[in-house]
Amino acid sequence: MTPEQFRHAGRRTIDWIAHYLETIERHPVLSRVAPGEIRRRLPPRAPERGEPFDAILQDLDDVILPGITHWQSPNFFAYFPANASPPAILGDLVSSGLGVQGMLWATSPACTELETHVLDWLVDLLDLPDRFKSDGAGAGGGVIQDTASSASLCALLAARERATGFQTNETGVDRALTAYTSTQAHSSLEKAAGIAGIGRRNLRPIEVDAAQAMRPDALERAIAADRRAGRTPCFVCATVGTTASTAIDPVPAIAEVCRRYGVWLHVDAAHAGSAALCPELRWIHAGVEHADSYCFNPHKWMLTNFDCDCFYVADRAALISTFSVTPEYLRNPATESGTVFDYRDWQVPLGRRFRALKLWFVIRQYGAEGLRAHIRRHVALAQEFAGWVAADDRFELAAPVPLNLVCFRHVGGDPANQRLLDELNGSGSLYLTHARLDGRLVLRLAIGGTFTERRHVAGAWQLIRDRAGAAAA
Amino acid sequence: MTPEQFRHAGRRTIDWIAHYLETIERHPVLSRVAPGEIRRRLPPRAPERGEPFDAILQDLDDVILPGITHWQSPNFFAYFPANASPPAILGDLVSSGLGVQGMLWATSPACTELETHVLDWLVDLLDLPDRFKSDGAGAGGGVIQDTASSASLCALLAARERATGFQTNETGVDRALTAYTSTQAHSSLEKAAGIAGIGRRNLRPIEVDAAQAMRPDALERAIAADRRAGRTPCFVCATVGTTASTAIDPVPAIAEVCRRYGVWLHVDAAHAGSAALCPELRWIHAGVEHADSYCFNPHKWMLTNFDCDCFYVADRAALISTFSVTPEYLRNPATESGTVFDYRDWQVPLGRRFRALKLWFVIRQYGAEGLRAHIRRHVALAQEFAGWVAADDRFELAAPVPLNLVCFRHVGGDPANQRLLDELNGSGSLYLTHARLDGRLVLRLAIGGTFTERRHVAGAWQLIRDRAGAAAA
Repeated sequence: MTPEQFRHAGRRTIDWIAHYLETIERHPVLSRVAPGEIRRRLPPRAPERGEPFDAILQDLDDVILPGITHWQSPNFFAYFPANASPPAILGDLVSSGLGVQGMLWATSPACTELETHVLDWLVDLLDLPDRFKSDGAGAGGGVIQDTASSASLCALLAARERATGFQTNETGVDRALTAYTSTQAHSSLEKAAGIAGIGRRNLRPIEVDAAQAMRPDALERAIAADRRAGRTPCFVCATVGTTASTAIDPVPAIAEVCRRYGVWLHVDAAHAGSAALCPELRWIHAGVEHADSYCFNPHKWMLTNFDCDCFYVADRAALISTFSVTPEYLRNPATESGTVFDYRDWQVPLGRRFRALKLWFVIRQYGAEGLRAHIRRHVALAQEFAGWVAADDRFELAAPVPLNLVCFRHVGGDPANQRLLDELNGSGSLYLTHARLDGRLVLRLAIGGTFTERRHVAGAWQLIRDRAGAAAA
Repeated sequence: MTPEQFRHAGRRTIDWIAHYLETIERHPVLSRVAPGEIRRRLPPRAPERGEPFDAILQDLDDVILPGITHWQSPNFFAYFPANASPPAILGDLVSSGLGVQGMLWATSPACTELETHVLDWLVDLLDLPDRFKSDGAGAGGGVIQDTASSASLCALLAARERATGFQTNETGVDRALTAYTSTQAHSSLEKAAGIAGIGRRNLRPIEVDAAQAMRPDALERAIAADRRAGRTPCFVCATVGTTASTAIDPVPAIAEVCRRYGVWLHVDAAHAGSAALCPELRWIHAGVEHADSYCFNPHKWMLTNFDCDCFYVADRAALISTFSVTPEYLRNPATESGTVFDYRDWQVPLGRRFRALKLWFVIRQYGAEGLRAHIRRHVALAQEFAGWVAADDRFELAAPVPLNLVCFRHVGGDPANQRLLDELNGSGSLYLTHARLDGRLVLRLAIGGTFTERRHVAGAWQLIRDRAGAAAA
């Protein structure tokens, strides 16, 4: 395919996507295919000869779309949003077109420098601590990871290394290391503890209060007990916006415990962090100025398509020392002076895409005020929905609603809620997921779609009310 | 930005990329900017108000392009290629447009099933062992990882778990575990040994023969010595196509050692694997039928833009048991029966892009014969270039040339080669990188660009000859 043929095929692909976005509400939000159904539509062997591009595009409609759960539908209220946007799609397209691999500064200086720069912009946009800036008073910096799972793993590894004088990397785990999160923390922490050779059982699940937030007194007791038993506490992960209910751990008090015991504090704000674009919501980040590392995902709630996690550290040397494998070979005056970074030493993989482009496109296209308007709209819609729930005798709120996630349930008990959930998702009109809070099934309605408007949320509530009678029966 | 505005902005972006590809040879291949130069062109703070899309596109030319090292230039001969292609770019565009997150089968069945299916196609296309197929006689399967670094880490972790009865994940590293690669293996193995809590010093660098390939006798001695010392050898990584010189480890003999000692064998064919599209090059995969895991990167030499590493295991249960964090919660009849996979349990992160689309677009657009033609063209050009080197008294070949990488040097010694390299890369006309083989500096010319033709390779040789006199002076 020549560049000129690319021009024609590219326009057709753009049109296909535009049409998809224009007609997305016609599809059932949750895919209805059975296991294996998509594979059965595909030929058993790859084609020997090339096929016309139009045949491939046609199969997107015929083969692929039936197997898609439409994350970009304005009626997608499941999990947390993954709200892509037109400028993000186009920024990512340019990244694919340039096809650079930014493992080292030298392999495309713009790939590294735009990333560093845009991540510094975001420190200002979210009013994060200056110590996370690459050119701030401290020695920190930001990097794009694929996901918050990887950010947590990187933080845990740096914590492990700092606690062991950077010797575990060299000689392996040689003592009982322990880590701490609340019972409501993301499952990726458990995965990371296994990967890092620390062991999942050495990740202590700290109990939560009535609002599902970590109890700092319980954290301190757990750390002190491990210390007394001769173990080495090395890492605490506080969550700002838990997956189940957007509970917000009390970071100031947790940070004080971490300070007293010399433990690395990571703050996982994967979903909620984007809220701090709005000054009135920045209270969620109280205490983050004491964290050793922090992450949030523009690919969740900042209009940037997956994958894009912004990961910050206060002491970049600790991170680089954790991941750098051939320091002599890689070091050069520019890297040493701190004016440029080789991001291969800030992450698990060696290679990296030019992901900063999509973030740059998004920030410039919407501007800070445009991004804030999106967040405010979603938060206001969630508050309005919560009001509707609270005013209906058949329903109750199951957790506080600090941001854009409403956890609620039918008063008829778990079976009624399960029936209601199945009916709603089976209708094709919307998609919700569930969680368990205090042992009870709750429905989660997360409002964050780029194209979600009041009419979609009102329509969801209407459908929920309509089906509530049947569910309770 | 509405879908209709996206349509217009998208066409302009497609045109920008087409124009970039049409004019790519006008740019110096290696970026000439100084550290910090790109950042200085960027405003210190993000814009408060949104900007016109055209202003962003204009800045691609004015701000970004000077900081790009042009990996897609037909004169890029550095590292290994990362040869994107028009259909890959458009497949990735569709992935961005759909914006699905394929962590579970249910979160978009097509995302999982197309990936499983296309990876099975590739087993046939490369004539890989049937045990790596998801629907083969065995219990294997394939998954897309971001990079070979991540594939190696996943393989090492699964090996660690298998060797310790899947207890290390639970309780942490509690014994001296050891791993083995040749001295020529990729640096990511060292990084992985650190991450996994095994320790970099417990990754034994096995000596190589004159062709830079691992010596199986040395491997066996190292494993036996560790066993006698009470350590637990758990993992061997053989390389098919080393980074420095595309040396090919003797996998059949290595596999026999692994079998005798019960050690997991991973085969890293990140770059070279794509060659097996051609029957006459499949000898590189001799012995792979005995491997526990295998990977190759379509994002290197199969016209698919970064990131796309195809990772296969013979026993998927070992991999899933390594990464699954909440088996009860996630398991469902479809997953259990093996008819569908939840790929979150095959990798480090939770979330995942719909990366199979670009691979599907590439395979269908070119067909098997089109892909083979690309490989054959690159290999033939490398052989021709090697012939030119061998016939010139001022140069010598520094390693065998089994595929598309030529390692050569000027007979004038290291300083002459360094001067020659600096001059060539400073010219802007091409980009080469170097390696050290047997302690001596060698120049590496890797031929794998999607748009690289004979005239580019001939032009490179002409330039090298022209500059050779000055370099020797």
